[in-house]
Amino acid sequence: MTEIIGQIAAALTTVSFLPQAIKTIRTKNTGGISLTMYIILCTGMLLWLVYGIRIQNKPIIYANSVTSVFALIVLIYKVKNLLKNR
Amino acid sequence: MTEIIGQIAAALTTVSFLPQAIKTIRTKNTGGISLTMYIILCTGMLLWLVYGIRIQNKPIIYANSVTSVFALIVLIYKVKNLLKNR
Repeated sequence: MTEIIGQIAAALTTVSFLPQAIKTIRTKNTGGISLTMYIILCTGMLLWLVYGIRIQNKPIIYANSVTSVFALIVLIYKVKNLLKNR
Repeated sequence: MTEIIGQIAAALTTVSFLPQAIKTIRTKNTGGISLTMYIILCTGMLLWLVYGIRIQNKPIIYANSVTSVFALIVLIYKVKNLLKNR
């Protein structure tokens, strides 16, 4: 039971960034989104990826490959909008 | 070195939600934010918390207590704005 809870938790926090990426691509609206959050988050996820590769932990590698792509999409749109509105 | 990378990664992904919570409280703007993301994310983080308590893992408990508060703040503002604009 405990392991199942952990797996569902991991799946949810990993997949949660997908709807944000889809919404951002669709609407291009990044008004309420924090640039600082996404800079820190993307850096953190990329470091998780490096850590996962170094300790050869597949769940860490897979989860962070996926989420860092979604988070990077949001970050790129946010930066694009900031540059456009300068 | 590997352990330090893991710790920095964990610290960054944990703390990343703070600037978003601050921005949301300050501006009350949740326009570009995905409701679906925050519902899935908050559920996932609360399950991580349950998992951490069950396996008595302090880093999991602390990290997810902190981030779930930040994520819940954003979710509450998002829902408030959606109800206001109906």
